[in-house]
Amino acid sequence: MSEAVDRLFVHCRQLVTLADGPATGPRRGAAMRALGVVEDGAIAVREGRIVAVGTTDELVARYRAPEELDLSGFVVVPGFVDCHTHPAFAATREREFHMRCAGADYMAIAQAGGGILSSMRAVREASVEALAERTTEHLWGFLEHGTTTIEAKSGYGLSLEDEQKSLQAIAQAADLVPLTVRRTFLGAHEFPPEYRDRRDDYVRLICEQMIPSLAPLADSCDVFAEPGVFDLAQSERVLQAAKDAGMRLRVHADEIQPMGGTELAVRLGADSADHLGRISDAGISALAASDTVGVLLPGTIFFLGKPHYAPARRMIEAGCAVALATDFNPGSCHTQSMTLIHSIACTQMKMSFEECLVASTINAAFSLQLDHEVGTLHEGKRCDLCVLDIPSVEALGYTLGGNPVAMTIKNGVPIVANISDREPDWFADGVVLDGEQ
Amino acid sequence: MSEAVDRLFVHCRQLVTLADGPATGPRRGAAMRALGVVEDGAIAVREGRIVAVGTTDELVARYRAPEELDLSGFVVVPGFVDCHTHPAFAATREREFHMRCAGADYMAIAQAGGGILSSMRAVREASVEALAERTTEHLWGFLEHGTTTIEAKSGYGLSLEDEQKSLQAIAQAADLVPLTVRRTFLGAHEFPPEYRDRRDDYVRLICEQMIPSLAPLADSCDVFAEPGVFDLAQSERVLQAAKDAGMRLRVHADEIQPMGGTELAVRLGADSADHLGRISDAGISALAASDTVGVLLPGTIFFLGKPHYAPARRMIEAGCAVALATDFNPGSCHTQSMTLIHSIACTQMKMSFEECLVASTINAAFSLQLDHEVGTLHEGKRCDLCVLDIPSVEALGYTLGGNPVAMTIKNGVPIVANISDREPDWFADGVVLDGEQ
Repeated sequence: MSEAVDRLFVHCRQLVTLADGPATGPRRGAAMRALGVVEDGAIAVREGRIVAVGTTDELVARYRAPEELDLSGFVVVPGFVDCHTHPAFAATREREFHMRCAGADYMAIAQAGGGILSSMRAVREASVEALAERTTEHLWGFLEHGTTTIEAKSGYGLSLEDEQKSLQAIAQAADLVPLTVRRTFLGAHEFPPEYRDRRDDYVRLICEQMIPSLAPLADSCDVFAEPGVFDLAQSERVLQAAKDAGMRLRVHADEIQPMGGTELAVRLGADSADHLGRISDAGISALAASDTVGVLLPGTIFFLGKPHYAPARRMIEAGCAVALATDFNPGSCHTQSMTLIHSIACTQMKMSFEECLVASTINAAFSLQLDHEVGTLHEGKRCDLCVLDIPSVEALGYTLGGNPVAMTIKNGVPIVANISDREPDWFADGVVLDGEQ
Repeated sequence: MSEAVDRLFVHCRQLVTLADGPATGPRRGAAMRALGVVEDGAIAVREGRIVAVGTTDELVARYRAPEELDLSGFVVVPGFVDCHTHPAFAATREREFHMRCAGADYMAIAQAGGGILSSMRAVREASVEALAERTTEHLWGFLEHGTTTIEAKSGYGLSLEDEQKSLQAIAQAADLVPLTVRRTFLGAHEFPPEYRDRRDDYVRLICEQMIPSLAPLADSCDVFAEPGVFDLAQSERVLQAAKDAGMRLRVHADEIQPMGGTELAVRLGADSADHLGRISDAGISALAASDTVGVLLPGTIFFLGKPHYAPARRMIEAGCAVALATDFNPGSCHTQSMTLIHSIACTQMKMSFEECLVASTINAAFSLQLDHEVGTLHEGKRCDLCVLDIPSVEALGYTLGGNPVAMTIKNGVPIVANISDREPDWFADGVVLDGEQ
C-alpha cells in the first residue's frame, strides 16, 4: 500500500536536491559543486516537511496525496536563502543613485541629504505601522523572486526607540508574510548626526542601552566595521557587548578598505563576515580556518559602479565557506533578485552556477543556524522550493535579468505564482498591427 | 460635446511622453534629458494611434470611450524599441557561458563546439517551422519586458538557404506576435566552416548570391566588422552590395579592437554603428557629425565579464545620437530586459535615466526609420506603451533586476500583463510557518 502524504510535486524537469552532500554544515571547495540533480523529479510533503525526494515514478509508486502539482518543464531548486538584507526602510533613494552615476562622491551625496542618514530620517518619521507595511511589501518581494528565508537587519533608526521600531516592524511584517525571517540588530550602521562629534558616546549607547533592551527582539547583532564608520576597537566593543547579551554576531567587514574586520569576525566567532571586497590574504586564511561564512554581495559593487568584487575564486579555493546575498537596501543595492546576483557572481566573480546555488541556499542557511531546517531538499527539512522557468539548472546565471521564477513554494504550499498573461485574442480581434511594414 | 475614441488610459502616476522634443529625428546631448512628464496622465487612442496625451482631467473632459483602463500607481513610458537583437536561434548556449566564466578563452570555447558556429549548426538542423516556433517565443519575451518594437537579425545560417530560412522564420514569428519587427540580413556574422580557408569566396557568395536573393526578405544588411572576422575591405564590399540592392545598412563596429568600422558605417550612410566598446576619437567625431546612430550594448560587456564599456558619456557629450539595445542572443548576451540594460548603462556607463529612456525609444526608433511611428507619445503615433511598477520614472535604472514591467500595450491594446499572484489564503489555511523561530 502506498503511504499518505499531504501533497506531491511531480514531473520537475530537473529537481536539484543538494542532497548529494551532508544535510547540515557549510560546503567548501569542490563540495560546492555537488548538486544532486534528479531528472523528472518529485517531492512528497507532509505537514510542510519533505518526506521523500526521487523520480516521479518512484514517488508516485510509494505515496498517494489528495493534491498533486505537475511541475513539467520547470527546474526546481531549494528556496533561496538571502542572508544579508536591509528591508526595514521607508523610502527609496533613486535620486542619490543617479547623482552617483553622474559622478557625485559620497560627501556630495551626503551634503544633498542622501546616504544612510537619509533613510534614517525617513524611518524616524515613519510610524511603526507605516514601516511595518512597507517592510511587508519588501518581504513579499523576496518571495516573488524565489527567496523563502531571509536575514533582515534594522539599522536605519540609529536611536534606541527607532531601532526598536525597526525590529518591531520586521517582526510584524514576518508575522504577515510566509517567509522565514531572522532578525539582526544593526544600530552600529552609521553614527547619527546627534552623535557625530561624540562617537564613543554612541558606541556606549549601543552597548549599554540598545543591546540590553533590544536583544530579545533580534537573533543577531551586526556592525559596519570600516574606517570612517566603526573602527576596529568600536566594532569589537559592540560585538562583545552583543555576545555577552547572548546574541549571535555578523560583521560588515573589509568592504572599502582592508581594516581587519574579517579577522575580528573570526576571532569573536561571528556567523558571518560580509562584503569582503577588500579582504586581505590574512583575512582569507582566517576565514578558511573558521566556521564564519564569507557573505559576498556582488550586487552592491555592481550597483555602486565600483570595480572591486570580492575575490570569490581565491576564497573558495582557500576553503572558505562562501555565501551570496542581495544586500537589498535603498542606497547601495536596490534588488531582491537572487538570480541576478547569480549572473553577477558568474560573470564578474567567475563563480560556477553550482557554487552560486550552494552559496545562496545551504551555506547561507548555515550562517543563520537554519541549515537543519532549509537550504537543501533532505528528508525532514521544510519543503521550501523555487520553481524556475529555465531550460536546465545550467541556465542559472546565464539567463540574465527579468524574473525567471515561475513559482515559490513555502512549507510545501505554493505561495507566489508569477504569470505572464498574453492576450492574443485582443490582438486578433480586429486590431491592425505592423501596418507600416 | 466630448469626442469619441476607442480607449482611454487614465490616472497614470506619471506619463512620460518624450513629447517635449520633436516627434522625429534623433536626440543628442542635452536634448536627451527632456522627458515631458505628465502627473496623473492620460492617453486617448483611436484605431491604435494616439489621439491626445494630457492630464486625466483634461482628457476625460474632452473624450469619451467605451473602454477606460485605470493605470493608477504605474509609471507609463513609450514601449521600448530594441534596435539590435538576434532572436532567430534554435538553442541556448549556457555551457559555453560557464566555460567562459571558468576562464576558457574564445579558442577553447570554439574547440569545444561553442561560439557562433554552435548556433549555426543548431539553425541548420532546424526546420523553418521549428525555428519560427522558437523565434515566436523569443518575440513574446520582448513584449513581456516592455519592448514593442525590435530589429531582428539573421546570421546563424551562414548559407543562402539557412539565411533564407532564418529570415522566413523571423517573418513568420512577426506575423504571429503583436510586435513591430524590422528584419536585418546578417550573413556576414562569421565565416562558416566550409569557407574557413577561402574567405573571399564567402564574401563573394554574400554579395553575388545572398544579397540579390534575400534583399526582399530584409529591411537592412549588417556586417560583423572586426579584425579576424570581416576586415574593413570585406565589410565594405558586403555593405556596398547591400546598398546597391536597396537595403539599409547597420554595422557591428569596433567591439573588440578599433578597426574603423564606425568611420566606415558613417561613410556609407549606415543607420547604425553598433557595440563601439573600442570606438576611436576619430570614430566618435565621425559619428557625431552624422545621422548614423551609435547603438550601445552594455549587456554584452557585462555578460562576457569584460571591462571595456563603450564611452557613452564622451559620445553623448560629443553630440552622437546614442541608442541602447539588448543584443539578445544565445552566446554573448542572453537577456531581453531593457530595464536591466538601463541599470547597466547607469551604473557602468554613467548614463542618466533620461538618456537611457531616450536611447531605448526615440533614438532607437530613428535608427530603424520608425521614428515617425513609435518612440515618443506624440499625437498620431502608434500607442505603444510600457507600464512600469516603479515609484517614479527616476527609479529607471535604480530598480535592479526582476521585471518591473506590469503591462505592455501595443497599438492601444494591452497585450501582456505580468501578474504576481499571491495566495495568502493557502498560507492562512492551517499551514504553520516560521515555527522554528
